[in-house]
Amino acid sequence: MTHIDLNADLGESFGRWRLGDDEAMLEVVTSANVACGFHAGDPGVLRRACADAAARGVVVGAQVGYRDLAGFGRRFLDVPPAELVDDVLYQIGALEALARVEGTRVAYVKPHGALYNAIVHHEEQAGAVVEAVRSYDPGLAVLGLPGSAWLRRAEEAGLRIVEEAFADRAYTPEATLVPRSEPGAVLHDPDEIAARCVRLATEGVVEAVDGTQVAVRAGSLCVHGDSPGAVAIAQAVRSALEGAGVRLRPFVGAED
Amino acid sequence: MTHIDLNADLGESFGRWRLGDDEAMLEVVTSANVACGFHAGDPGVLRRACADAAARGVVVGAQVGYRDLAGFGRRFLDVPPAELVDDVLYQIGALEALARVEGTRVAYVKPHGALYNAIVHHEEQAGAVVEAVRSYDPGLAVLGLPGSAWLRRAEEAGLRIVEEAFADRAYTPEATLVPRSEPGAVLHDPDEIAARCVRLATEGVVEAVDGTQVAVRAGSLCVHGDSPGAVAIAQAVRSALEGAGVRLRPFVGAED
Amino acid sequence: MTHIDLNADLGESFGRWRLGDDEAMLEVVTSANVACGFHAGDPGVLRRACADAAARGVVVGAQVGYRDLAGFGRRFLDVPPAELVDDVLYQIGALEALARVEGTRVAYVKPHGALYNAIVHHEEQAGAVVEAVRSYDPGLAVLGLPGSAWLRRAEEAGLRIVEEAFADRAYTPEATLVPRSEPGAVLHDPDEIAARCVRLATEGVVEAVDGTQVAVRAGSLCVHGDSPGAVAIAQAVRSALEGAGVRLRPFVGAED
Amino acid sequence: MTHIDLNADLGESFGRWRLGDDEAMLEVVTSANVACGFHAGDPGVLRRACADAAARGVVVGAQVGYRDLAGFGRRFLDVPPAELVDDVLYQIGALEALARVEGTRVAYVKPHGALYNAIVHHEEQAGAVVEAVRSYDPGLAVLGLPGSAWLRRAEEAGLRIVEEAFADRAYTPEATLVPRSEPGAVLHDPDEIAARCVRLATEGVVEAVDGTQVAVRAGSLCVHGDSPGAVAIAQAVRSALEGAGVRLRPFVGAED
Repeated sequence: MTHIDLNADLGESFGRWRLGDDEAMLEVVTSANVACGFHAGDPGVLRRACADAAARGVVVGAQVGYRDLAGFGRRFLDVPPAELVDDVLYQIGALEALARVEGTRVAYVKPHGALYNAIVHHEEQAGAVVEAVRSYDPGLAVLGLPGSAWLRRAEEAGLRIVEEAFADRAYTPEATLVPRSEPGAVLHDPDEIAARCVRLATEGVVEAVDGTQVAVRAGSLCVHGDSPGAVAIAQAVRSALEGAGVRLRPFVGAED
Repeated sequence: MTHIDLNADLGESFGRWRLGDDEAMLEVVTSANVACGFHAGDPGVLRRACADAAARGVVVGAQVGYRDLAGFGRRFLDVPPAELVDDVLYQIGALEALARVEGTRVAYVKPHGALYNAIVHHEEQAGAVVEAVRSYDPGLAVLGLPGSAWLRRAEEAGLRIVEEAFADRAYTPEATLVPRSEPGAVLHDPDEIAARCVRLATEGVVEAVDGTQVAVRAGSLCVHGDSPGAVAIAQAVRSALEGAGVRLRPFVGAED
Repeated sequence: MTHIDLNADLGESFGRWRLGDDEAMLEVVTSANVACGFHAGDPGVLRRACADAAARGVVVGAQVGYRDLAGFGRRFLDVPPAELVDDVLYQIGALEALARVEGTRVAYVKPHGALYNAIVHHEEQAGAVVEAVRSYDPGLAVLGLPGSAWLRRAEEAGLRIVEEAFADRAYTPEATLVPRSEPGAVLHDPDEIAARCVRLATEGVVEAVDGTQVAVRAGSLCVHGDSPGAVAIAQAVRSALEGAGVRLRPFVGAED
Repeated sequence: MTHIDLNADLGESFGRWRLGDDEAMLEVVTSANVACGFHAGDPGVLRRACADAAARGVVVGAQVGYRDLAGFGRRFLDVPPAELVDDVLYQIGALEALARVEGTRVAYVKPHGALYNAIVHHEEQAGAVVEAVRSYDPGLAVLGLPGSAWLRRAEEAGLRIVEEAFADRAYTPEATLVPRSEPGAVLHDPDEIAARCVRLATEGVVEAVDGTQVAVRAGSLCVHGDSPGAVAIAQAVRSALEGAGVRLRPFVGAED
């Protein structure tokens, strides 16, 4: 029987400001990328996300980011690698404490925003995040973009890597993401997105923007939840996958 | 043979800004209250403090504070208790991650600045910090002011409490500290301070401002290190204690 | 012909996080209390609020607060008065620059959240905010709670003071606000709120919780806009006032 | 009679943390680049710097930077230009308020750290800072590196530009700075530095690393003051210039 993981960003509210519907998304996903306070998420928000994830058997990952609340971690920051190692360790540890008191733990790491994008190619920052994860706990998995420096270096460091595909993004014939700046980069139709996800999960294939059929490996599908429409799409994806007989289960705890 | 612990605040630099001489102080103290990033200390500073402490066998404690970099945690902040619990957990966990990768761990908690002062009397905030420590690890010790709500509630929660005395502060006949706003509240003569510390450690007695001899229980003496003069005083205290045959050892690991 | 001002808090989004519907509220109010970045509001948000206010002839005031993004300025912070003076000056100046490039200016000051509440009674902080306003521009008006230390001291300093009433709050027989912790402190029915506002504006009277008719002076009515329901209430208040022949106009520029 | 301006970064302390000796440097320089709170400087620090500058007739400039306290503004941050415009306006306005209450004003703008370096080549960010200055007050001067996009665009926008040379930096034969990563990039001998400055001011020539004599235009010389040694160098530079009959005067107010 085919299975796959669904992941989404959670815990991204901060103080008075709400973002996303964590409770609704925790009914959909099997892995929750919980923010760690540097780009989003205050300690109370993180704790509630961990508690709600634990209550539903959703696995918690550390969604580490640049120290940039004003930019939501979406602006590249040229952090020297040695500093980045420590910034990532700090964030993982902070989230871990809140996860532990809620009966769960940080089981994987997925960088956020501009850091996620940077370490596709930025070797030094990619190496820094890997070094942070490895030195903290080599048993942690790492989640990221296929072909990224991040995953390559993590694998070289002996970490378990998990590749993800994006439910609502168009792909090039080379199996990379169509840049957001180009038309058609982001899909909006729930049925279309759900159908693509089923095909990804069952056949490992996605149709590229030029009609090519492209092989895409993915142990996890990334869905978004920071708008009402996004939640509906995520729910449609889950329903379609279940309807197609795809079992949804976290990649952590499913190593065998 | 008599013994006592010496503790000091460390890890209080931030980014470009240096504060104190952590390396010099780590040659003096047996317990290091390392800042956790909310009132001072960036991840790199915290890690170095943990590494240097570990290298010298100095025990690391979490010096948790209010989220107030601009005020260095010295301004009372009316944080609701539930938020304070999570803020403290976040800080302990963050420091713990950096301590672990340097081969040590957070072994106790000592609140900083305005939080330290608030929880002498502020029952709700005192209870919040206790709840954070207890839920994180009931094996952690807590360090604080004798007679404080903080230590009373910690003891009620089953935590190990350690009372501290202040090397350079004048005492009232009631064994409380003379407020800083009053003349003579802070002592400056290294020899006088050192002599008082010896008496505190060997007899459990300090001379109050009115000449009364007052009993002061203390498992640890707090010394300061954020100025060149302060380091010299701390060194004088250590030398005098050793000269008087007082063994300096951390309170953690010395429970028996 | 009777007239009154309507004021509301705006510019309280921050980075990725949206709060309130500034555009909708700018169709309702005549004075906009724009946040200044310490408790809410990034520079882009502030600028848009100023631009949108200017386009509609809405007067801009500086909604200064404690430096506490995580707490949205709703937690008392024991800032020494001399620091508070400078914090307030910094905020006013920052907003002023953004207002000026959009063709308007800061015309009054209304403190936010915990600072607003503190300076009802906290003489030193009240004096600090007054000193900041007076030294920046003694031509600025100040908006606040009748009977507060803030307004008394501002008046003593020669500033123009404007008293406000709250559209959706219950009053005691002594003309003070019923604390939020008590039942019935906040009103929710748009029609009831609108009717009370009309009576406030036309008769200067409000019915207290015990049925007493209480005189309440107010040059401005404060309405809220940070939820869809709140916007609807604000719109109902404006409609009712206009229907009753009350002219809505800013208190600034209406001195004569 | 030959004249030149001396500028240095000031107001870079923050809260508990001191950096540099502002008072000593204000005896040396004629223009003070005062930080604005985004990379360094709290409101009280800024105000004192402005007050001390005003008392000595030193001109105040806004040393605007990235919003990055942890990195002291020394890490490139990929801020979208529209956001950067508003960030710069916010900073200028904030400093202006504190300058005004101390009887002076912001008379020029000099970006700091990574922003300074970025806008040598980064056209969008250079344009954003220029746009902020122009829209705030086209009468402000701008200070920067000869040949930078920043100065070119400022000139195109009709702003008065002032080129600066660096007292303690080695130059290439092309009149650019030797990168800090190369040996000999930074000079340390006070006498050598002072002699170079005299030649720069009187002949407009500096000896490059390869012995070439290079023409360097400069309306201002930048000196550093964030260490005791740096203050001594700055003092040596001033003494040597005065001894050589070079008049030190601010570039602002010396347009004719």
